[in-house]
Amino acid sequence: MRHFLSTEDWSRNELQGLLDRAAAFKSGVKSRSLEGKSIALVFFNPSLRTRSSFDIGAHQLGGHAIVLDAKGATWPMEFGDGAIMDGAEEEHVREAARVLSRYVDLIAIRCFPEFKNWQAEREDPMISAFAKHATVPVINMETIVHPCQELAHMLALQERSGPVAGKNYLLTWVPHPKPLNTAVANSALLIASKFGANVRILVPDDVYRLDERYMSAAERFTAEGGGSVTLTTDIEAAYSGADVVYAKSWGALPFYGNWGEEAPFRAKGADFMITPEKMALTNNAVVSHCLPMRRNVKIADAVVDSDAFMGIDEAENRLHVQKAVMEALALQGGAE
Amino acid sequence: MRHFLSTEDWSRNELQGLLDRAAAFKSGVKSRSLEGKSIALVFFNPSLRTRSSFDIGAHQLGGHAIVLDAKGATWPMEFGDGAIMDGAEEEHVREAARVLSRYVDLIAIRCFPEFKNWQAEREDPMISAFAKHATVPVINMETIVHPCQELAHMLALQERSGPVAGKNYLLTWVPHPKPLNTAVANSALLIASKFGANVRILVPDDVYRLDERYMSAAERFTAEGGGSVTLTTDIEAAYSGADVVYAKSWGALPFYGNWGEEAPFRAKGADFMITPEKMALTNNAVVSHCLPMRRNVKIADAVVDSDAFMGIDEAENRLHVQKAVMEALALQGGAE
Amino acid sequence: MRHFLSTEDWSRNELQGLLDRAAAFKSGVKSRSLEGKSIALVFFNPSLRTRSSFDIGAHQLGGHAIVLDAKGATWPMEFGDGAIMDGAEEEHVREAARVLSRYVDLIAIRCFPEFKNWQAEREDPMISAFAKHATVPVINMETIVHPCQELAHMLALQERSGPVAGKNYLLTWVPHPKPLNTAVANSALLIASKFGANVRILVPDDVYRLDERYMSAAERFTAEGGGSVTLTTDIEAAYSGADVVYAKSWGALPFYGNWGEEAPFRAKGADFMITPEKMALTNNAVVSHCLPMRRNVKIADAVVDSDAFMGIDEAENRLHVQKAVMEALALQGGAE
Repeated sequence: MRHFLSTEDWSRNELQGLLDRAAAFKSGVKSRSLEGKSIALVFFNPSLRTRSSFDIGAHQLGGHAIVLDAKGATWPMEFGDGAIMDGAEEEHVREAARVLSRYVDLIAIRCFPEFKNWQAEREDPMISAFAKHATVPVINMETIVHPCQELAHMLALQERSGPVAGKNYLLTWVPHPKPLNTAVANSALLIASKFGANVRILVPDDVYRLDERYMSAAERFTAEGGGSVTLTTDIEAAYSGADVVYAKSWGALPFYGNWGEEAPFRAKGADFMITPEKMALTNNAVVSHCLPMRRNVKIADAVVDSDAFMGIDEAENRLHVQKAVMEALALQGGAE
Repeated sequence: MRHFLSTEDWSRNELQGLLDRAAAFKSGVKSRSLEGKSIALVFFNPSLRTRSSFDIGAHQLGGHAIVLDAKGATWPMEFGDGAIMDGAEEEHVREAARVLSRYVDLIAIRCFPEFKNWQAEREDPMISAFAKHATVPVINMETIVHPCQELAHMLALQERSGPVAGKNYLLTWVPHPKPLNTAVANSALLIASKFGANVRILVPDDVYRLDERYMSAAERFTAEGGGSVTLTTDIEAAYSGADVVYAKSWGALPFYGNWGEEAPFRAKGADFMITPEKMALTNNAVVSHCLPMRRNVKIADAVVDSDAFMGIDEAENRLHVQKAVMEALALQGGAE
Repeated sequence: MRHFLSTEDWSRNELQGLLDRAAAFKSGVKSRSLEGKSIALVFFNPSLRTRSSFDIGAHQLGGHAIVLDAKGATWPMEFGDGAIMDGAEEEHVREAARVLSRYVDLIAIRCFPEFKNWQAEREDPMISAFAKHATVPVINMETIVHPCQELAHMLALQERSGPVAGKNYLLTWVPHPKPLNTAVANSALLIASKFGANVRILVPDDVYRLDERYMSAAERFTAEGGGSVTLTTDIEAAYSGADVVYAKSWGALPFYGNWGEEAPFRAKGADFMITPEKMALTNNAVVSHCLPMRRNVKIADAVVDSDAFMGIDEAENRLHVQKAVMEALALQGGAE
């Protein structure tokens, strides 16, 4: 039985298969592949697009989604093996995952890291525990990676300009008032490298280098399938000739849980907002950002409201790619 | 493409058409007019009836509703054009409205004013921004007016005693521990005047006059279609010969955002609760209140529990009128 | 019209009928007995299993569930007759119950006691008010009893080892950092005694005796149908020869609302966690706990992860028994 926890576990051909199925759904193909089946959407964090698109997508496939707010409406949850549960946690994932598996056919989890201890959180312990103990497939709705966003992004890129192999793909750090999760940055790196792009990661300082797990995975993907991965702090070089600009803000891992000391490095990126001037350096690039997105902080209105911005198409694609993922997992031999 | 933001934008004939359709639904007529369609119910504020009745109504029409809690479960939202989003807001309505429009066929919004600055809030900025940027019809689930409540109220009145044209319709301010939204008062004024009633607005002091936008709209409606609008502080005169008594508490607009100074005026209304004694002055009037309703503060138990009270019927009608509204909007040429 | 508020109101034969229907559902029998019907799930407290299993169960029966978060997403609710509602409560159950009854065919309520005044709370005032004013059947999703859990538990016991009549059934208090609701303990006592078990209640001190209402009901049931009820503080005697061990922690009623003084009595139960050593005293007993459950505080991992633990089966059974309850209530003459 396969889960959908990270695209690292799926080959480029398999992912392209999901994208092709998503494109078919988008073009009007119908399916009742979740008929009589249900999915639990477990949210430890807020959501607008994910909640909406999974619920509607499941319904369009004939299935039924239930939304569980895991911070508030359900019980605080423990994931550690052997834990003596005398603190705030009332429920162990071992029970929650097994019981939900008796009720539903798929479990989807959103669980951002706690921003306290990256060495522990880089293991993605909550969703890993769900995947270990659930007896139905588990889908990642964003933890320390965001694979559904990856597929939506790649589908939008393919729709706009065909294959990304050999294209110059710029992942640029952008300003934000606070340090954020690296999930979408990790994911952009994974999917662009897997599909053979020349990936440029533009950061204000080397401290914004992404976790070695993702850097080395990307280098492995490009060694195998073409493309390249570079990290730079040079804005002009990074934008020059770029075919794709993808924006994301994140916190620097060396200061994880100790964010006060990150401030001077963050300040070095004060001019990293995407502007028309920067876009003029590109090869008429498309530009995108997962949503939500702070206007005029990360990307200037003039760019967001231009034809180059494909963020709305990308967000729409969440619906279609997630239908492809749910269908693929539910139709496995072990899904029911 | 039409939205359902305020009954001001709909003619009396069009509204009567919705009421007739609602009455048909109530009498057992079935429809699958939302088959394959979905609606997003976006709540910035609490709800019992609205949430339940929209969800069930959509389901009865063959559609699918998703509920989004916009304060907590989703991202804080900005509506200002050109805003530099470096504060608490993570998402702009421009994106939220456009993305939801890719997922669903209708968007319904509940967004009460913030009680800070009436000059800004009287423009109903959040739902106006949704209506501007959404590419599907938008329904008002209560902002500074409450048009679905208006229809439910008018249907209950017509069921009880036929057309309201020429009847004496008393909208009475009633006590409440704190200043409330004027939405339902504005709406009662709009719908009663549009349908030709002689509207009496009873308040403890002229400072409780409703916003000029609604006062002048009501005068225009009665000038065109019959009826009248008067504002009074005389309890006995207001109740005498009334055919309908509708209760609502609201804050005085001159003290908006500065509520401490409203207290002495609020105190003047201490005796405005609806009692059997006041009801005895009427023409055997029906009495109602949108729900929730504080018993023995706004209306005495003896009145609520009498046959004159039609608030439960009115609340039931929310289901039927909202089905009529959803159907009418979804069947527009531009709805999908 | 019957509600499902407590198993006290249902005969052993009736309850067995529900269990048999639940077993049929579990074995694959389909039903569309809620076709065109809906149920409101009103939660004043958190839930994982209850929310999931009622929603999915209703859907599997062809019905439609709506989830209402009564603390936050809806209005604060008053239940007292004649209340002057000038406090925090905005809505009276008299209205909420009647309005929901116009929208849905069944109403289910979770409302834990407030832990302030047991003399008032032992009357179960909120759900009692709903049952009084609703015009559709009301289902208890846990208040001061938890009858759906009782059925799920009894079904799991019957699946494991047939009828419980004459078996030694140990309800053991177990440690927990704070005083909890007695609901599941009350319910275990009610259902085990109703089905004729020899019930042993093991507590650290007599102050943990359950409310007289349930103690005397259990004595009445065993007098009529066989079995017995004893209260003990002797761990070894309680476990010796037990066929069933059911764990629950609860607060001592004499200290209700005054919990500081309970601490020394709670300390007397520090060794009450279920361990392999205690289980070795039993007659190869099955062991269970409603979920959520604190591992290594209430029950040691080695017991939870042994074949003797039937808590996951019991949790699964919530789905099946609740389908039986919803169907039985919806098919009553008065249900629609």
